[in-house]
Amino acid sequence: MKKTLAATALTMSLSAAAPTFSEETKRSAVSMPISMSDIQAVSPAFGKYARETLLGEVWKRPGMSARDRSVVTVAALIARGQIVEMPFYFELALDSGVTPTELSEIITHLAFYSGFPQGMAAVTVAKDVFAARGIGADQLPQESPELLPLNQASEDARAKRVEESVGPVSQGVVEYTTMLFQDVWQRPGLAPRDRSLVTVASLIANGQAGQIGFHLNKAMDNGLTATEASEMLTTLAFYAGWPSVFSAVPIAKDVIEQRPS
Amino acid sequence: MKKTLAATALTMSLSAAAPTFSEETKRSAVSMPISMSDIQAVSPAFGKYARETLLGEVWKRPGMSARDRSVVTVAALIARGQIVEMPFYFELALDSGVTPTELSEIITHLAFYSGFPQGMAAVTVAKDVFAARGIGADQLPQESPELLPLNQASEDARAKRVEESVGPVSQGVVEYTTMLFQDVWQRPGLAPRDRSLVTVASLIANGQAGQIGFHLNKAMDNGLTATEASEMLTTLAFYAGWPSVFSAVPIAKDVIEQRPS
Amino acid sequence: MKKTLAATALTMSLSAAAPTFSEETKRSAVSMPISMSDIQAVSPAFGKYARETLLGEVWKRPGMSARDRSVVTVAALIARGQIVEMPFYFELALDSGVTPTELSEIITHLAFYSGFPQGMAAVTVAKDVFAARGIGADQLPQESPELLPLNQASEDARAKRVEESVGPVSQGVVEYTTMLFQDVWQRPGLAPRDRSLVTVASLIANGQAGQIGFHLNKAMDNGLTATEASEMLTTLAFYAGWPSVFSAVPIAKDVIEQRPS
Repeated sequence: MKKTLAATALTMSLSAAAPTFSEETKRSAVSMPISMSDIQAVSPAFGKYARETLLGEVWKRPGMSARDRSVVTVAALIARGQIVEMPFYFELALDSGVTPTELSEIITHLAFYSGFPQGMAAVTVAKDVFAARGIGADQLPQESPELLPLNQASEDARAKRVEESVGPVSQGVVEYTTMLFQDVWQRPGLAPRDRSLVTVASLIANGQAGQIGFHLNKAMDNGLTATEASEMLTTLAFYAGWPSVFSAVPIAKDVIEQRPS
Repeated sequence: MKKTLAATALTMSLSAAAPTFSEETKRSAVSMPISMSDIQAVSPAFGKYARETLLGEVWKRPGMSARDRSVVTVAALIARGQIVEMPFYFELALDSGVTPTELSEIITHLAFYSGFPQGMAAVTVAKDVFAARGIGADQLPQESPELLPLNQASEDARAKRVEESVGPVSQGVVEYTTMLFQDVWQRPGLAPRDRSLVTVASLIANGQAGQIGFHLNKAMDNGLTATEASEMLTTLAFYAGWPSVFSAVPIAKDVIEQRPS
Repeated sequence: MKKTLAATALTMSLSAAAPTFSEETKRSAVSMPISMSDIQAVSPAFGKYARETLLGEVWKRPGMSARDRSVVTVAALIARGQIVEMPFYFELALDSGVTPTELSEIITHLAFYSGFPQGMAAVTVAKDVFAARGIGADQLPQESPELLPLNQASEDARAKRVEESVGPVSQGVVEYTTMLFQDVWQRPGLAPRDRSLVTVASLIANGQAGQIGFHLNKAMDNGLTATEASEMLTTLAFYAGWPSVFSAVPIAKDVIEQRPS
């Protein structure tokens, strides 16, 4: 039996690691296309960085829970359509306290921020993960639930801004942006702070600098701390690459410095 | 038999939808990896947005034909290498009036704008779609057809601009850019307006802001209307994600405002 | 037997092409998912550009060795996660003088610059290529080798700059950036000039404009010539698409003009 990265890491040196792997995660990991012996056969050094540095150190850092780190990682994978690593990290997210309802909402939310095709790719993985765990309709969010109450003042300001900037070019975009903010964002299955977190993580992972400032501010309005923002960047350096994070840093710096402390 | 998103949508509520699905599309859809029941098993809400909002509303909007919406969608998928959704949308394009010659030329054209590997990925899907429909060499564009007449003044201006900006850095890039504009762009199998449309859609989908202005202007010179540009953006919001479109909007606004009305 | 792009090209017209294909490459090519007849069945023109222009002309250009062109191509494919074309170009790289140790280090290095998931995707391909050639642990770089000597003055300057710019936002990013520069970059299995070359190629391929200037300067400090930079851009136009290269050109121009000649 091939041992996978995670399974091996667990056996070898990560018994004290922050993320705890359930039997389901280990089973899923076993079916992953990348095993620790595969990595060793190409790059022992990459194996060490993945096992000791990323899973063994970064995931254990204080300042961000394994649950939130899962949310950030899953968002980056969905935003970039990286199917290969999704099964392992979807399992890890569920084991770290992300509920099936939340994972379902993350996928739906990111379909709007990364495109419906990326959402569909995530569905192909999540359906198997859910099926293997016996997660059925009763654990999923309703199609049309009662929405969270809207902050009307803030929504009016948003609508006005979008009408001014986008309206002269595309009324269709204006119309569906309203749906995005009044419907998708207000669904109760994922807390506003978590919607902001996955939005910011997806923007950084995809290098969409223009929207990071607005959404990082909104994330912090919604409860994300500066320490958590710092750890989000540390995590994304590994999952989205250094340049994505370095491009986001000056924007994050401006946001953090200009907020009332 | 699993019903797919499109097949189910057709049966359930889209009998009056703008795109009409041929038997070929339905057969292909049946073999798609994502079915409506898969989506329901992960996110009933995502299913609703895909079925009712995107296929049921957006595709029916006036201002852009289903044929052009197919062209935009196919361009976004090729530009981002999203193979999973290509079979369904290649079929839909052919059913909506895109000819095999045009689809062949779209793939070749976008190989230059998104990289040859993305073109090759599209080939792996298109060959099966063409084979299933019995589309043979007689329906494909020739390898070296008689080219469209060149607008020499406009080409001279382009060549001069590229020589000045790129020449000091890379004569190789200058040389093959000339081939791109004098050979690829002049092939008769795809109208200049459609070449511009797929170019602009690919640039927006890949966040390549620097070239959007030039090519949107060229698209409108080639006959794309402001209404069609607006609907292209509405379509891309769903297929490439909101941030890609929001980054393109100010550029599109400048182009549209500065054109003589 | 289906003939592949490369195999067919070789037989048809490329016997004098710069890259020479070993028996291994030809065997691997045979198993590629894209054959020349596949391309012909979709776009004879794309086939011609791939065969005659790219493999027949660009790869034969003076100014950059086939070995370095392989390095650039492999870097672009890994950075963008384009698995389909990796087997052929990994083989071609090994046939063109890239050692297994170097390919292993390129994958590890780019895991940091394009994200660990892209590195993992490359591992899934490289393990099969290595296995088919009987490349074992003795031909791979050690996990923790003696590192190259650090240029302490330059490293101090980098550390100071990163602490000032990144420190106020994320000490975690600062910490692991130090690891990246003091550990990963100093591994002896890939020359500093080659690390710079793959870094720059990956940044251009992924449109990460903000970091291109710094790393192109570093590449030229490490021995990359202006002619090689020019040919890198020519190669990337085909493998990453024209817009990626056009966005990089003004940055490259500034770097080249401001260097002491």
